[in-house]
Amino acid sequence: MKLIRVDMTNATVTTRDVPEEFTNLGGRALTSLLINAEVPADCDPLGPDNKLIFAPGYFSATPLVNTSRLSVGAKSPLTGGIKESNVGGTVARDLARLGITAVVVEGRPEDGKTFVLKIDENGEASLADAGRIWGSRTYEMVEQIRDQLGPDYSVTGIGPAGEMQLSAASIQTTDFDGRPCRAAGRGGLGAVMGSKGLKALVVHKKGNAPAPLADPEAFKTAAREYARAVRADEFSGEVLPELGSAVLVAPINAAGALPTRNAREGQFEGADHISGETMAQIIRERGGKTTHKGCAQCIINCSNEYVDREGKYVTSSLEYETIWSMGAMIGNDDLDTIARLDFLCDDIGLDTISTGVAVAVAMDAGYKPFGDGRAAIEMLEEVAGGTDFGKVIGNGPVAVGKHFGHPRVPVVKGQSMAAYDPRAIQGMAVTYATSPMGADHTAGWVVDQSLEDFGGTLDRFSAEGQVEASRNTQIHMAAVDSVGICDFAQSGLAAPGGLENVCKMIAAKSGKAFTEADWTDLGTRVLKAERDFNRRAGFTSQDDRLAPMFYEEPLPPHNKVVIISDEEMDKTFDF
Amino acid sequence: MKLIRVDMTNATVTTRDVPEEFTNLGGRALTSLLINAEVPADCDPLGPDNKLIFAPGYFSATPLVNTSRLSVGAKSPLTGGIKESNVGGTVARDLARLGITAVVVEGRPEDGKTFVLKIDENGEASLADAGRIWGSRTYEMVEQIRDQLGPDYSVTGIGPAGEMQLSAASIQTTDFDGRPCRAAGRGGLGAVMGSKGLKALVVHKKGNAPAPLADPEAFKTAAREYARAVRADEFSGEVLPELGSAVLVAPINAAGALPTRNAREGQFEGADHISGETMAQIIRERGGKTTHKGCAQCIINCSNEYVDREGKYVTSSLEYETIWSMGAMIGNDDLDTIARLDFLCDDIGLDTISTGVAVAVAMDAGYKPFGDGRAAIEMLEEVAGGTDFGKVIGNGPVAVGKHFGHPRVPVVKGQSMAAYDPRAIQGMAVTYATSPMGADHTAGWVVDQSLEDFGGTLDRFSAEGQVEASRNTQIHMAAVDSVGICDFAQSGLAAPGGLENVCKMIAAKSGKAFTEADWTDLGTRVLKAERDFNRRAGFTSQDDRLAPMFYEEPLPPHNKVVIISDEEMDKTFDF
Repeated sequence: MKLIRVDMTNATVTTRDVPEEFTNLGGRALTSLLINAEVPADCDPLGPDNKLIFAPGYFSATPLVNTSRLSVGAKSPLTGGIKESNVGGTVARDLARLGITAVVVEGRPEDGKTFVLKIDENGEASLADAGRIWGSRTYEMVEQIRDQLGPDYSVTGIGPAGEMQLSAASIQTTDFDGRPCRAAGRGGLGAVMGSKGLKALVVHKKGNAPAPLADPEAFKTAAREYARAVRADEFSGEVLPELGSAVLVAPINAAGALPTRNAREGQFEGADHISGETMAQIIRERGGKTTHKGCAQCIINCSNEYVDREGKYVTSSLEYETIWSMGAMIGNDDLDTIARLDFLCDDIGLDTISTGVAVAVAMDAGYKPFGDGRAAIEMLEEVAGGTDFGKVIGNGPVAVGKHFGHPRVPVVKGQSMAAYDPRAIQGMAVTYATSPMGADHTAGWVVDQSLEDFGGTLDRFSAEGQVEASRNTQIHMAAVDSVGICDFAQSGLAAPGGLENVCKMIAAKSGKAFTEADWTDLGTRVLKAERDFNRRAGFTSQDDRLAPMFYEEPLPPHNKVVIISDEEMDKTFDF
Repeated sequence: MKLIRVDMTNATVTTRDVPEEFTNLGGRALTSLLINAEVPADCDPLGPDNKLIFAPGYFSATPLVNTSRLSVGAKSPLTGGIKESNVGGTVARDLARLGITAVVVEGRPEDGKTFVLKIDENGEASLADAGRIWGSRTYEMVEQIRDQLGPDYSVTGIGPAGEMQLSAASIQTTDFDGRPCRAAGRGGLGAVMGSKGLKALVVHKKGNAPAPLADPEAFKTAAREYARAVRADEFSGEVLPELGSAVLVAPINAAGALPTRNAREGQFEGADHISGETMAQIIRERGGKTTHKGCAQCIINCSNEYVDREGKYVTSSLEYETIWSMGAMIGNDDLDTIARLDFLCDDIGLDTISTGVAVAVAMDAGYKPFGDGRAAIEMLEEVAGGTDFGKVIGNGPVAVGKHFGHPRVPVVKGQSMAAYDPRAIQGMAVTYATSPMGADHTAGWVVDQSLEDFGGTLDRFSAEGQVEASRNTQIHMAAVDSVGICDFAQSGLAAPGGLENVCKMIAAKSGKAFTEADWTDLGTRVLKAERDFNRRAGFTSQDDRLAPMFYEEPLPPHNKVVIISDEEMDKTFDF
C-alpha cells in the first residue's frame, strides 16, 4: 500500500510504502493519527506547516457495500483544532483501487502558483499547472478537467470559496454520475486546499491494485451478510431509497428539535413544505429521481436528483441537513429555493451547514428578514464574487456575528451546530460540546437513542445517561469513520452480530485477529489523538462548551435549555 | 470611598462603599481583581455578563504629580482575555476628587436603548437617554455634551467604532483642554462600552471629596521629592516636553527595531521625515505647540498640538506609537497624513496601534500599495461609515488577515504588537508573548534595558536574561498601573530612593505600612489574577506565543528572528 506525499513548496511528488505504524489503518484513523504525529499543533492552518490528507476508509474498494468513504483531514481554519471531514462519491474507491492509502499534501507554493494533482491508472501522481481551471466554480471545473482528461477520473476540488481561503469552504467531489455534488463540508478544509494552491485531486477510476485481502472468502461471506442486513432493514432498505435523509424533517420538527430562524424556535410552521415526503412528491411530479446512486459501492441509493418545473436538473443529493440550514434555519419554506442554494453551495464550494447558519445569523441580526430566499441566494453570489460582505458570509457564522455585533451564534469551537437543537435533545449537547471536531452531528449522533419513534430509550430532556450515550457513540463513530462505512449503512452494524461481522472483515483483510474490544480501542485511540492535538493547539475544557444562547434561551415549544453541567461535560472524555 | 454600579439592563445606579477586600486598591489592581472575581471567564465579551470598569489610580487626585491615570477594565472582545487599558486626561482626577474608587457598568439594555452616564458635582450618578448624541463622532459628542452641561465635565466615551462594537474600538477621553484626544485604546474596550449602550461617562470636574490622606504631611514631603526627581531627569524634564514620545523614532529606527511595511523590515528610509525632531520643527514653524499639557496633575507636558500649514488644529497628543503605526508600519513618511489619521482614530474612536497595523496588513495583502496615505484615510472613513470592508479594518489585524487570507499578522492573543519589533529586541518578545494583555508594549517595556544609548545592559539579540527582565518589568508595571503614575513620570521611581518614596506615599495615604516587598506583592497579585482569569477563559501556554512570522522571517537589517524558546517563555510566570 502506498502513501503519496505532495510537496507543494517544490512541486514534487514522492510515493512510499505506508510506514509500519500506519498499516492497517484507514480513513479518519489515518488522517487524525498522521496529523497528530506530523502537523505542529500551533501552526497556522493556512500556512505551509499544515498538511491536508486524503485517506479512503479501510474497507474502500473491498467487496463490502457502502464503503467509498473518503476522510479528509487537516488542522481546521474554522475551529483551530484537528478536523476530519468525511465524504462519499467515488474517489475513495478509486484511490483504494490504486493501492493508495493516503495522499498527504504539504507545504505551500510560491505566490500565485496553482496546481492540479493527477493520479493516473498506474497510481502515478503528478502535479500540473492549474491554468485557467483555477478560478472556476466546481461544475465548470469538472467540465474543464473532463475536456482535458476524459471521463475516467473522479474529481475532488475546490470552488471560489476555497480559492479565497474562506473558513466555510468545502472540498467537493464527484458523485457516481460525475457531478461535484458531494461535499467534505465541515471545518473549512477547502480553505486549506486553497492555501496550498491545489485546485483539484484527479484520480483515475479504473485502478486495479486494491489492497489484497488476507482471507478473501471469509471477507466475502461476512460482507454478504452485512449487505443482507442493510437491505433487510426498513430504514436503509426502504425509507432512505424513497425519501433520502430528508425523511428526518417531519419527526425532528414534531420533536420540537428543528432549529428554526437561527434557533429561536424548535418547530417550523413551514416544515410540511420542506419534508422528505413533499420533496419526493415534487420530484416525482416533475420527473426527477427520488432514488439515485450517489456513491460507488452503494446499495442504498439515498441520493436524489432535484429538477425544476421544466424537469431541468437543479441539484443532486439534496439532504436533510441542507434542507434544514437553507430552510427552517433561515425561515424559508420554498424547496425550489433550498435546492438552488444547495447547488450554489456545491458550485461555489461551501459547506451548506455553516453557510446556511451564517445566513441565519445575518438575518437574525436584521440584515434581511427571515424567509427571504432571494436574499440568501444573493448572499451566496456575493461569496462567489468575493465582495467584502461575501467574505464575511463565507467565513461562517462566527464571522457574521462579529460583523454585525450579534451575539446569537450557535457554534462550538467556532463551528455551527447541525439540524438538531441540543436544548431538545440533550445528548446532542454533549456531542456538540465535546467532539474534537466542534459542533458536528456525525461525530456522535444520539438522536435515534433519544426519540421514542426511533426506538430510543433516553429521556431527551434529562441529563441522565447523556454523557455515556454520547461518549459511546463518539467512540463508535471514530471507528466507523476509520473503516469507512457509510453512516446510512450502519444498519448492518446494528443488526444482531453486526459488529462481530465487521470485526471479522477487519481480521480477514489484515490477517490479524480483531475483536470487539479492538473496535472500541480503535475509536478510543483516534479520539485520544484528536484530543491530544487540540490540547497542544491550546484547547481546554472551556472549549468544550456550547454557545451561551443554548444555556440561556429556552427553546419553544418545550422551553428547555441545555442542562448538562460543565462537570458532566468534562467527564465525556474520561477514558 | 464609593463604588458606583450601573445596571444597564434596568437602567439603575447604586452607590455603595467600597467592599473591604478592595479598599486601598486603585487602577489596574482594582479593575483586574474585580473582573476576576465577578465576570464569568467564559462569558461573551459583548454580552450582558461582561463588566466594564473605570477606576482611577490609587494616587489620582492626591498631591502627587502625573497621577490622573484611569484604568479601564473588562474581558476583551479582541483577545478574549482580561484587559486593562490605561489613559490620562482629567477623568481619573475628576472621579477621585469625587471620592469615587470605581464605576462598574454591568448588564445590557434592551435593543436600541442608549445612555449617557452623568456624575454630578456631588458624586451622584444618573443615566440619561443618549438621544442624538448616539451616532456622533467623539469631537462632536463632546460638543453636544458641552452644549447641554457646560464646560465643567470631563467626557469619556466612544465613537462610531465603539457603537458598532468593532474589536479595535477605543474609549476616548477629554484632555486638559477638553478635546477627546486621549485613548484607552487597546483591547477593543470601546466595543464593550458600545455593547452596553453607553455612549459616554460624564464626570464633573470640581468634586471636593478626595480620599483623605492618613498622613498628609508625610505624603506631601514624598510627593515633592518625587516631583523634583521628575523635573531633574533629562528625559522627563527636558526631552519629553520638547519632542514628546516621538523622540523614540530616531533611536528605535537606528536600532533596526522600527517595524516597517508590516514588519518586513526594521528600518524605515523615511524615518527622518517622521522623527520627533522633524515634527517639533514643523509644529514650531506653523505656530502649533510642541509643549502641551494633556493631563491633569501633569508637570511634564509631553503632549503637543499639531497644526496644518495654515496654523489650524489637526490633532493633539501625536505620539510615538501612532507615528509608527500610521507611518513606518504602513510605509508612509508624511507627517501631515499621520496627524490626520491620528485625528480620525480619535474622532471615530479607534485604537491607533491596532488600526494602523490593520491597514498595514491590508496593504501587505496587496489591497493598496504601502505608503498610500490617502488609501489609509479612506479605510478609516470606511470604518466610520460602517461599510463591510470598514468593519473588517475596524475589527483589527486578525480580521484583516482572515479577510484577505493573508498570514503575516503581527499579533499575540489577537492583539497587534506595538512599535518595537521583538526580533530586534528579544525582551519585547517575552513581554508581547506572555503579558495577559496580548502584545502590549506598556505591560513590560524593556527597551531602555536593551539599548546601549538608553543605558541598557541586556544583549538584545541574545536570549540571556530576557525572561527575567520582562518578568520584573511586568510585575513593576502592574503595580505602577495600579497606583496610577504616568509611565513617562517613572523617572521619579527610577531615581535613587524613588521606589521607597512611592511606598512611603502609599503608606501615608492608607495609614498602613507598605514596603518594597509589598510593591512586588501588589504587582504579582495583579498579574496572578489576570493569568487566572485568562486560564479560566481557556488560555494555555500555547497562547503565550508570538505570530509565526516572528520566529520564521529574519528582520533586516540585523536579520534576526525571535530566539526565545517556548520553554523559556513558559518560565516568565513561574512565580
